[in-house]
Amino acid sequence: GLKPSTHSSARSRRMVAVRAQSINPEIRKNEEKVVDSVLVAELSKPLTAYCRCWRSGTFPLCDGSHVKHNKATGDNVGPLLLKKQKE
Amino acid sequence: GLKPSTHSSARSRRMVAVRAQSINPEIRKNEEKVVDSVLVAELSKPLTAYCRCWRSGTFPLCDGSHVKHNKATGDNVGPLLLKKQKE
Ligand code: FES
Ligand code: FES
Repeated sequence: GLKPSTHSSARSRRMVAVRAQSINPEIRKNEEKVVDSVLVAELSKPLTAYCRCWRSGTFPLCDGSHVKHNKATGDNVGPLLLKKQKE
Repeated sequence: GLKPSTHSSARSRRMVAVRAQSINPEIRKNEEKVVDSVLVAELSKPLTAYCRCWRSGTFPLCDGSHVKHNKATGDNVGPLLLKKQKE
């Protein structure tokens, strides 16, 4: 991570703001740790996308919201795809 | 998201710094979008944990790094668990 500078208050204020931050602003914040389980034998579709961007409206599933997140932030995150067989 | 204030330069600087940020600082930044696929029929273990915190040294697998991330940031993220059967 970036180390806060101690040389000027303006610089210090800025460096503090870019230190490590929460990546989940909204999902299930009442839970200490958000862990989800998938019983792979019960997957119904050939392909199911699971969210890793913490912006999906259908979390833990991916709803495509990673596209907007990546555009807004310059990030490059995407889902985990569970496949029942090679296509 | 938070709207930058236009009333003072100090406040504006601070508000800009807390707007939406990248959640993946390091993993496969040469790729436009990091998507991984799991062929569930090939899972070898009864339980496999996949990372959703973007801090794992064994990404796309979870190596427990979410614990350090959560402590450092106050976040509550955790892995997606793929299970071959109900236990
Ligand atoms: S909506 Fe989060 S990875 Fe697609
Ligand atoms: S290391 Fe990322 S969720 Fe566990």
